[in-house]
Amino acid sequence: MKIVLAPDSFKGSLGAPEVCDAMARGLRRAMPEVEIVSRPMADGGEGTLDAVLAAVGERGTREHAELTGAAGDRVRAAYGVIDGTTAVIEVAQIVGITDADGMRAHVEDRSTPGIGELIAQLLDRGIRRFMIGLGGSSTNDGGSGLLHALGARFRDAAGRDVAPSARGLASLASVDAAKLDARLASCELSVMSDVDNPLCGAMGATAIFGPQKGVQANDVARIDAVLRRYATLSEAALARAVAERPGSGAAGGLGFALQLVGGTVRSGAEVVCDLVRLDDAIAGADWVITGEGRSDRQTLLSKAPFVVARHARALDVPVTLLSGAVDPAALADLDRHFAGCFALPHGPMPLDECIRDAAALLASRAEALAYVIAAAVK
Amino acid sequence: MKIVLAPDSFKGSLGAPEVCDAMARGLRRAMPEVEIVSRPMADGGEGTLDAVLAAVGERGTREHAELTGAAGDRVRAAYGVIDGTTAVIEVAQIVGITDADGMRAHVEDRSTPGIGELIAQLLDRGIRRFMIGLGGSSTNDGGSGLLHALGARFRDAAGRDVAPSARGLASLASVDAAKLDARLASCELSVMSDVDNPLCGAMGATAIFGPQKGVQANDVARIDAVLRRYATLSEAALARAVAERPGSGAAGGLGFALQLVGGTVRSGAEVVCDLVRLDDAIAGADWVITGEGRSDRQTLLSKAPFVVARHARALDVPVTLLSGAVDPAALADLDRHFAGCFALPHGPMPLDECIRDAAALLASRAEALAYVIAAAVK
Repeated sequence: MKIVLAPDSFKGSLGAPEVCDAMARGLRRAMPEVEIVSRPMADGGEGTLDAVLAAVGERGTREHAELTGAAGDRVRAAYGVIDGTTAVIEVAQIVGITDADGMRAHVEDRSTPGIGELIAQLLDRGIRRFMIGLGGSSTNDGGSGLLHALGARFRDAAGRDVAPSARGLASLASVDAAKLDARLASCELSVMSDVDNPLCGAMGATAIFGPQKGVQANDVARIDAVLRRYATLSEAALARAVAERPGSGAAGGLGFALQLVGGTVRSGAEVVCDLVRLDDAIAGADWVITGEGRSDRQTLLSKAPFVVARHARALDVPVTLLSGAVDPAALADLDRHFAGCFALPHGPMPLDECIRDAAALLASRAEALAYVIAAAVK
Repeated sequence: MKIVLAPDSFKGSLGAPEVCDAMARGLRRAMPEVEIVSRPMADGGEGTLDAVLAAVGERGTREHAELTGAAGDRVRAAYGVIDGTTAVIEVAQIVGITDADGMRAHVEDRSTPGIGELIAQLLDRGIRRFMIGLGGSSTNDGGSGLLHALGARFRDAAGRDVAPSARGLASLASVDAAKLDARLASCELSVMSDVDNPLCGAMGATAIFGPQKGVQANDVARIDAVLRRYATLSEAALARAVAERPGSGAAGGLGFALQLVGGTVRSGAEVVCDLVRLDDAIAGADWVITGEGRSDRQTLLSKAPFVVARHARALDVPVTLLSGAVDPAALADLDRHFAGCFALPHGPMPLDECIRDAAALLASRAEALAYVIAAAVK
């Protein structure tokens, strides 16, 4: 029997590789001879790099770069290179909302040059394939820092350079894309985003995600207008219109900037499926187990377990969901996609106990599932 | 696919027949074509009569009798007759610890004539097969009330009748079994007990179960001595020694009296298996689901789910445990007997929510299990 483990992380308790380890431990107790293939999953957000590197094994290397952080400070950021040809970047590693240095600057002063610097370094090495996860950023610069680092210039009415930040762009009068790195044109740039927001407007980056980054309520309209003019001028300079596209509002507008230079927004989980060659792992397997911290209706909006289920179904392999919790309101819908949805608790228990004992609970639940499968296929 | 449902009750939330209904509802959602055979189980304690009558369907009838309660009051007690030949009696229906009238009398005055009266009535009808569940009694009379109702006489040194109760037996000097109902000799009397205690001593009825029935700590030794003399004299009168046998201390010594008149203590769950013809139901089935409110190490001491598992295994049919909660400390042991042990919660939740929503949770868990089985056998 061959079982593929392809869970997302259990946020707040276990990373996806640890989830795989716990599941594998339980399965082996029930089926000592089982062949287990672990493909920890992610959705492009935090933990994506760890999951992908764990899943691809020797195909990947973890590397580090010294880059400019959100506040202009130096940050040491991890990224991955797969097969020597594909870079996996988490913007949160460079301009993360949990980075204290970056968060010290006012949100209107934060910027994203570090992402552009890293892309430029990798372009120098000949890498042309980029998988960029947008979750967890502290910035709201419309991605202007990235464009600046890659050669774009932003000027005021007097022709003076302005800083690539919400504050600097307030006096933006022209965008010069002539020096934009020409190698971008030959790149495959996959943008992993789990939000569909456009850059501007009521559902835009500033209005929806600005407040959690420090944008005051009465500054939203002003900053949104700044980003709108920046977008209009930038789009004109590059002869492309992407500000209204889904995902342009992700990561404070990094989604806009990356699409502007040719990137394509894709489901993060789908990108990860490709990277870790999930289909190759599933083909010929007898079962797939996926899961996440909590499964609910959101799960059916292309979260990792749902994407895994779609891939498994296409290959006619059963896939069971084993999550920390399963929202009963979503169960009827989830049941249509999974061969059984199970939660961690072995009885009534509080959340903190469930989080604390997650690994042991996961192992036990996987073990129980294995007993059922073993008995059924006998 | 044919699935047999043979759960015990979920104490505090659902009776065994309701557990079957909830499981069946969930299974049918996943497998509309499934053939379901419900055999609600019990262990001889409270709920045994309901479970057996639900399980045997038209083979059984629920009847009622007016009998003498523990305090000498009149009680209307339910009992069952299966196939017209086998009586199912729950002593708790007659001398139950939850019966307010019976509990009003002092524990030393309570007695068990009602059980004997019912047996006598049934003997009159020609019934010779009795399955008697001993759980939940309020009495501590050594079963003297039962023996008295069936013809035994208890006398003091002056030859006067004494009451068949701990108080009356204090002046017991002789036991006359000459008039004991002779038909008992041709009966099959199965005594369902889940305790192994002898009648007297440190592990006896008075010491262990007396306190919860109202025996004061400093009365234990005195009452125990009374029962010991009563046992010695009764055993001599019937030329049988059973006071040290496992189960003689059950139901305040009813286990002693019933064994004294030829009864055999059996595992309650085993008796129920026979009554409901569980093996016939399991033979040819694809799966068995059992369960109980909480599974722990006690489960492996011949509780109903364990007995069901043994029967299913003998017939080579997988059996899955689906309980309200599963003690993780017992899981490794339970896993050796079940094709998967699962609990009710769909995530972290408090006990009261688990109890309140038990039926819906059960249905969902059974449904999930069905998806796994269906996918595995495909």
